[in-house]
Amino acid sequence: MPNTARWAATLTVAATAVCGPLAGSALASPGGAAAGLYAPSALVLTVGHGESAATAAPARAVTLTCAPTPSGTHPAPAGACAELRAAGGDFDALSGGSEGLCTKQYDPVTVTVDGVWQGRRVAHERTFANECLLNSSESVLFSF
Amino acid sequence: MPNTARWAATLTVAATAVCGPLAGSALASPGGAAAGLYAPSALVLTVGHGESAATAAPARAVTLTCAPTPSGTHPAPAGACAELRAAGGDFDALSGGSEGLCTKQYDPVTVTVDGVWQGRRVAHERTFANECLLNSSESVLFSF
Repeated sequence: MPNTARWAATLTVAATAVCGPLAGSALASPGGAAAGLYAPSALVLTVGHGESAATAAPARAVTLTCAPTPSGTHPAPAGACAELRAAGGDFDALSGGSEGLCTKQYDPVTVTVDGVWQGRRVAHERTFANECLLNSSESVLFSF
Repeated sequence: MPNTARWAATLTVAATAVCGPLAGSALASPGGAAAGLYAPSALVLTVGHGESAATAAPARAVTLTCAPTPSGTHPAPAGACAELRAAGGDFDALSGGSEGLCTKQYDPVTVTVDGVWQGRRVAHERTFANECLLNSSESVLFSF
């Protein structure tokens, strides 16, 4: 091997030793949110009594992360993420449900979803006439 | 003990046995978000290149929960929650910092915080002229 080629090989090995760990730590960055690997998905869901998010003080709030693995304080992250993926991130498609066993009592509850879903910002808000209707929506995402 | 008193005592024990576990599970609900125990705190933080949240696609997004214990995909939940508590939830107070070692290059990055902090809805947005200024803000919350 000529001297120049040997030097080039040595430099390549040295560069890999120095930069390799950095690249590795970037890939394993907390939150798994390194740009380019996959689009970030991180959400906050709230529920509160009131006609709109502006007037409904959040009584409960949970977090949900869907990549690299489902996690968060949501009681069923895996189910909620699967539901969101199946709906293509369309929150309106999720929150429909049967009204069979609920009264017409008007005591509105508002659920909100804010954050990022597959790289896009999300700000969703939906009001149910009463808590029974929310619970009957049969959505894993909104069961928290 | 008269018979009626004995029956009453028996019923009380039975009721406790049936209802006790339910009350316990409510207290230990996922996310620790049972209303009345403490105000919920659940946040989504994003960072993206652009002049405002409307134009900056989120490159990274992490979640942060501060009660009952610090958690989330944020790399330092405990530090971030302590910082937020110390600032009384004032995000503007956090994001100041020295500009000593940064250039004047204009390549804006926007950080956002959305969700709930101690029961109040939060929607915060701050733009730094370049990433160096963001990193030099010495805020644990914004280091993700």
